[in-house]
Amino acid sequence: MSERAKRTIYLDHAATTAVDPRVVEAMLPYWTERYGNASSIYALGRESHHALDRAHQTVAEILNCSPNEVIFTSCGTESDNLALRGAAFERRQRMQKTHIVTSSIEHHAIGHTVEQLVKSFGFEASYVPVDRDGMVETAEVERAIRPDTAIISIMYANNEVGTIEPIAQIAEIARARGIPFHTDAVQAGGSLSLDVKALNVDLMSLSAHKFYGPKGVGVLYVRKGVPFLPMQTGGGHERNRRAGTENVAYMIGLAAALRLAYDELKESNARIAGLRDRLIASVLERIPESQLSGHPVLRLPNSASFLFKYIEGESILLNLDLQGVAASSGSACTSGSLEPSHVLTAMSFPHEVAHGSLRLTLGKENTDEDIDYVLDILPGIIEKLREMSPLYNG
Amino acid sequence: MSERAKRTIYLDHAATTAVDPRVVEAMLPYWTERYGNASSIYALGRESHHALDRAHQTVAEILNCSPNEVIFTSCGTESDNLALRGAAFERRQRMQKTHIVTSSIEHHAIGHTVEQLVKSFGFEASYVPVDRDGMVETAEVERAIRPDTAIISIMYANNEVGTIEPIAQIAEIARARGIPFHTDAVQAGGSLSLDVKALNVDLMSLSAHKFYGPKGVGVLYVRKGVPFLPMQTGGGHERNRRAGTENVAYMIGLAAALRLAYDELKESNARIAGLRDRLIASVLERIPESQLSGHPVLRLPNSASFLFKYIEGESILLNLDLQGVAASSGSACTSGSLEPSHVLTAMSFPHEVAHGSLRLTLGKENTDEDIDYVLDILPGIIEKLREMSPLYNG
Repeated sequence: MSERAKRTIYLDHAATTAVDPRVVEAMLPYWTERYGNASSIYALGRESHHALDRAHQTVAEILNCSPNEVIFTSCGTESDNLALRGAAFERRQRMQKTHIVTSSIEHHAIGHTVEQLVKSFGFEASYVPVDRDGMVETAEVERAIRPDTAIISIMYANNEVGTIEPIAQIAEIARARGIPFHTDAVQAGGSLSLDVKALNVDLMSLSAHKFYGPKGVGVLYVRKGVPFLPMQTGGGHERNRRAGTENVAYMIGLAAALRLAYDELKESNARIAGLRDRLIASVLERIPESQLSGHPVLRLPNSASFLFKYIEGESILLNLDLQGVAASSGSACTSGSLEPSHVLTAMSFPHEVAHGSLRLTLGKENTDEDIDYVLDILPGIIEKLREMSPLYNG
Repeated sequence: MSERAKRTIYLDHAATTAVDPRVVEAMLPYWTERYGNASSIYALGRESHHALDRAHQTVAEILNCSPNEVIFTSCGTESDNLALRGAAFERRQRMQKTHIVTSSIEHHAIGHTVEQLVKSFGFEASYVPVDRDGMVETAEVERAIRPDTAIISIMYANNEVGTIEPIAQIAEIARARGIPFHTDAVQAGGSLSLDVKALNVDLMSLSAHKFYGPKGVGVLYVRKGVPFLPMQTGGGHERNRRAGTENVAYMIGLAAALRLAYDELKESNARIAGLRDRLIASVLERIPESQLSGHPVLRLPNSASFLFKYIEGESILLNLDLQGVAASSGSACTSGSLEPSHVLTAMSFPHEVAHGSLRLTLGKENTDEDIDYVLDILPGIIEKLREMSPLYNG
């Protein structure tokens, strides 16, 4: 291992990020000093309650919505689950609607939830296909809608290949039909606009740990007037929409992280996209039989995802890890699975190509030197693995 | 306000506790340094994964179970919801069982969840009554069971009046009938034994912030072989039973807090119960027409709950708050409600008596001086409020 690699070069920001020290600083008082239960009526409780109000307010400013439309949850997965189950069950109960429209490239937090609603609760689902760039076609969404469609859920940006979906157009279709539209914005949060009025969405999921906040706290935006059945019931927290003693520290942390991310958005995106573009261009240039996966332009600013013929993504990762680089073959949530990525399969890549995937997702601490280092070692790793591959006749 | 009261005398440990600084210390590295996603295969990810393994192991030691039987959740409410919904839906799907047995004094995390299962999902529920001490009668549980009972859920100790329920006996009845038995141990965690083998339970809920851990993390114990339907679906986290990127820091925090609580259990309980006994005896002695609510002996070591005739609990709290004492009238989760406590009502107290409730719950930082101070000010507060009460003819 080179001297350079004694620290980890972290290129898996889509999996999770380090918490910004300013966020930790903001959270710290809420464990040992300002520990009041926000539902309690004495001073210590009211202090927590005011802190939660400020957290709702901060998130609402960035989402361009009312603080009452912001529900804090325990993570992006909970937000996705709550949006889908909450809206689906409510519309089944009130309107007998039992059909769900979603895409074939959603995160499992949506995909597996739809599967459970179908398998265990009698719903039906239509999966909208994507093109080779991972782009959902709006016309296909329109075609999938039925009179009994209860909810449409299409992600804002794909976590594996970075493609940004035409959310505003899909939202318009849904709105015209009076069907609630949810977007999983977990991967988009911290780099794309979250203006819910511009996006025209009814429900939107976020997760703090994708934008330098802690793991274990998320947001579900629910537009006023969009009914849903709460899926965590108990006390009257979050205006009766999500029961459970509020995790004051993490709500403060999510709000602080979101504020920092959007205050620094333009500079950060421009710098990271610059590094990313150089990384993509150089990888494609230096490594034969390599290709970019996902849309070439309409992609998350920090996302570089590749396909390398003849080899396995997992073996690339192990070699990168040995040389101090943290990377992913796709979603961290599916690591260890032997199946090829459902996203790459949906994008019509054959299994043997989909297996050779590498996702490098950049973040604010990455430097030009990090990119140089990766460009330095990656071609050799790919070459070595190909030489060992029975599929390769280079 | 006296000099003494310049710091808050916190007597609402049943609502929440300050995080132990040793717990904060244990969590700190997991935000900015050891921030890896526990599902990632590189070193930083594996480090998080090992930390989670240790957290499961620690909890399992205290619960006397296998680490695989420990599921981390986002709070006690989620644990309660997951136990109830997960077991109820699974048994409905597999065995067409749609009946739930619970008690009339459960926390709303159980009570409102049962209500939703009845109202929106076609289940039926039987509520087992309690005696005047808040004790569930095991014979009544037996009578409530039907051939289609899917789950029985009875709390370990009541959060409002502190009564400890005969869980092991109820568990035995459930076990004999082959019905899964869940106990909400949220309020018992940190002061009573959590040995699931001795308690004989199938499912058990815990929440870290009741034993000096952070708000926003809980545990659901699920005995091996007890099937349930996951209620948060997505990635394969927690062995496919609770999806969502793991909140490594808080899982470490919960485990550390639980370990500290049970290492220090005997000394802590003895000291706190001593203070509590003096508090109860002196209040009943010094304040006329006062009574203890809940069982006189079989009660949580830190719990003192009273009923004062002719006045409102809320007004007692406001006066205590003005003099620097944080207390509750019952459950923090129902603060602001104008309804009398469902627990006190179930214990057959008439509404006008139930309204005059005060709960003082002690914790490890409380001292003899704290008790002296409360005993000093409380009789005057009660007397003043009674003089203002139209119901009082003292």
